[in-house]
Amino acid sequence: MEKVAPFELTQEFLERILEAIEAGDFAFIRESLEQVRHEDVSSLLEELSADQSKLVLQLLDKDVASAVIEDLDEYTRSKFLTVFKPHEIADYIDNIETDNAADILNELPVKVREEVIANIKSPEKASHIIELLRYDEDCAGGLMAKELIKANVNWNVVECVAEIRRQAENVEKIYGVYVVDDNDTLLGRVSLKEIIIAKSNAKIADIYKSDVISIYTYQKEEEIAELIQKYDLESVPVINVQGKLVGRITVDDIIDVITEIADQERILMAGIAEDVEEDDSVWVLSRARLPWLIIGLIGGLTGARFIGFFEEDLLKVASLAFFIPLIIATGGNVGIQSSALVVQSLASINVFESSLWQKFFKTIFVAILNGLVLAGLVYVFVYFSYDSKLAFIVGCALFTVVILASLLGTLIPLVLDKMGFNPALASGPFITTTIDLIGLGVYFMVAHLLYQF
Amino acid sequence: MEKVAPFELTQEFLERILEAIEAGDFAFIRESLEQVRHEDVSSLLEELSADQSKLVLQLLDKDVASAVIEDLDEYTRSKFLTVFKPHEIADYIDNIETDNAADILNELPVKVREEVIANIKSPEKASHIIELLRYDEDCAGGLMAKELIKANVNWNVVECVAEIRRQAENVEKIYGVYVVDDNDTLLGRVSLKEIIIAKSNAKIADIYKSDVISIYTYQKEEEIAELIQKYDLESVPVINVQGKLVGRITVDDIIDVITEIADQERILMAGIAEDVEEDDSVWVLSRARLPWLIIGLIGGLTGARFIGFFEEDLLKVASLAFFIPLIIATGGNVGIQSSALVVQSLASINVFESSLWQKFFKTIFVAILNGLVLAGLVYVFVYFSYDSKLAFIVGCALFTVVILASLLGTLIPLVLDKMGFNPALASGPFITTTIDLIGLGVYFMVAHLLYQF
Repeated sequence: MEKVAPFELTQEFLERILEAIEAGDFAFIRESLEQVRHEDVSSLLEELSADQSKLVLQLLDKDVASAVIEDLDEYTRSKFLTVFKPHEIADYIDNIETDNAADILNELPVKVREEVIANIKSPEKASHIIELLRYDEDCAGGLMAKELIKANVNWNVVECVAEIRRQAENVEKIYGVYVVDDNDTLLGRVSLKEIIIAKSNAKIADIYKSDVISIYTYQKEEEIAELIQKYDLESVPVINVQGKLVGRITVDDIIDVITEIADQERILMAGIAEDVEEDDSVWVLSRARLPWLIIGLIGGLTGARFIGFFEEDLLKVASLAFFIPLIIATGGNVGIQSSALVVQSLASINVFESSLWQKFFKTIFVAILNGLVLAGLVYVFVYFSYDSKLAFIVGCALFTVVILASLLGTLIPLVLDKMGFNPALASGPFITTTIDLIGLGVYFMVAHLLYQF
Repeated sequence: MEKVAPFELTQEFLERILEAIEAGDFAFIRESLEQVRHEDVSSLLEELSADQSKLVLQLLDKDVASAVIEDLDEYTRSKFLTVFKPHEIADYIDNIETDNAADILNELPVKVREEVIANIKSPEKASHIIELLRYDEDCAGGLMAKELIKANVNWNVVECVAEIRRQAENVEKIYGVYVVDDNDTLLGRVSLKEIIIAKSNAKIADIYKSDVISIYTYQKEEEIAELIQKYDLESVPVINVQGKLVGRITVDDIIDVITEIADQERILMAGIAEDVEEDDSVWVLSRARLPWLIIGLIGGLTGARFIGFFEEDLLKVASLAFFIPLIIATGGNVGIQSSALVVQSLASINVFESSLWQKFFKTIFVAILNGLVLAGLVYVFVYFSYDSKLAFIVGCALFTVVILASLLGTLIPLVLDKMGFNPALASGPFITTTIDLIGLGVYFMVAHLLYQF
């Protein structure tokens, strides 16, 4: 009996395939790839050139090749679809479910897209894809597939099973059947489990669950992710404003959404401008990183000008300069902590939010507590290592900076969110630069005032 | 015909329930909650005290109440299970699937846990839970549930459907049936879709797919998440080292894992020590934030000492102090960018990794490119605003800092990862503080050397 031995993708395997391409040993390639899952073939193709990929794809069954294309990362795919003619792309699209087909078409130049659509064999599929292309990519309409199984509420189980059989080839993953009335209005859902355990003469009307969670075409991907996660769904039906069933979203697409959101947030928090990966080119990586670095630079130069106003103080008391890093680093750290907590709370929908004032007072309390601890520690240290006046100045400035950084770190993401930006932007160099400047201001003002007496 | 109108949790609803609890109006509570999904009841209970929650739970059907407990967040649950007696908890556990049951038991004090287990009605369930308690929470064994449907390879479809019917009540979500031999060795899987479309006299041996992806009990949650995501799975069977089927993990648990990993990373990147949320108490929030702030403080004080060595230089050329913020902020920004990219690439398994040397050279190239751009900009600005010597010093120091920060930002997460720590730790104040100090060092050394001539 066969053993479950998962195929493992290795560097050697890749090299073997590359050699075979070089040598034109097509039989070897075909045979080797037969035991490989299409997801792994995709990973493999991401290492090949567009022409090599085309060669490999043409050796595979059309439906396997289509699945491989479906799974490629966007970057590789857009690069290599350029070597295909529109009717060749359309051939693959015929085997790809509508949601991914629409995504792929979205990646093509408009002219190619039109030609591909004109070459799709099934007119129904073409019209479905055109419908999906109308929606924004980040809302339910843009995520949903048209492939689903629906059953009329007046059917019985036998009719429903017949429908599943009829559609089985078009719909890859079936978790349940959506129940609709004669107008296609969504009424509820029956899971496959319930269909299997039901008696064959049972009526759909008697076994379906009406408390199904559905989503409107216009709802945002973050909301959908939240719903799928909260209610442990494996798929969710999408309805239009009239309540008609128009598509469904499956959990695998939502996992991709969740990962993308987390990736994007990380990129923003790190102050990187584009969605880059470590294996992008030196030029792309450099370009993605420079914008925020230059903004930080401008902040730094402004800071230099600012300290310049206090040059006389510095020439008298050079030790003032010693604590510049302490002040701005603490301000930056506090600001990032505050904004990360706000971003986290913005990410999860909570109906029982404490009021804005409650939040505000809490932020202030935490800030005062931390400010006192930090300022106290620094006061004691500077008192014994330098002198009492400097200790007082540094302590006061640090306390003020902690309070201001907490407030800004809390406010900036809230404001960004209200303005429609990603609040995670606030956790990056943006907030650090702002708080650096404010910290410097507070520090030198306090010092200037105190040294005058 | 019924309309699909999802119940919406509101502040008013919560207040109404609170009033009813106060007034002892149990009929109202029972009636109101009847139309509410158990996940929403959980959200509601998270706003109530432990005693209020107990009262509400006792008004619900036992299986609904169990589902509500299952869905509570860990913090609320551990607080409120203290008001239940062990046999009451056991009653609920009887209705909860083994994976979550084991998680809940893990949250209880050891003595209570033992008493609860002794009170579980089904001996089979109790032994399953005891088995699951043996595993680490973050590996497949700790995530899997014992509830699954398995079919012997010698059965036909009718026998398989009979088994599904028999187990339907115990297994909430059924996506497919795992096929095993007489020794319980996993051979493959049949999806429910295939069972429905198969002829009833078909043999399981003829319709099952043997290329099922399975996971060993010891595999880590990150790996499982990666597999589920790559192969678009809704559940994955778990086997022991002998290849015997011992459990299954469903996609909803993996979504929670993915979200947790992202949350934890965000917390680490922001320099927060514990997993806190905005609605934790002032004291908890303050305590979670202080450790890294104090480490930053120590870094700042060390920086102060360090600049102190150059007090004489500063007294001669106060303008040296002007660029301290610029140098350390740029170093920090570059360091965080670098480490975030490494963390991202560590998070995704890629068999075709470019070699360490390739990575190293790429990092250097990007750093040189960005370093040249930034140093050039600063040189020009300082040249025209201050003087040429200072421009040269700041430019040189900035270039060096960018290179060093890139290298450290790349290396530190790699080293942390090798040592078994979460590499995201490196993106927080840890790296900023280190790079601050190095930046200061470079800057003042360069200045000191150049001003001597």
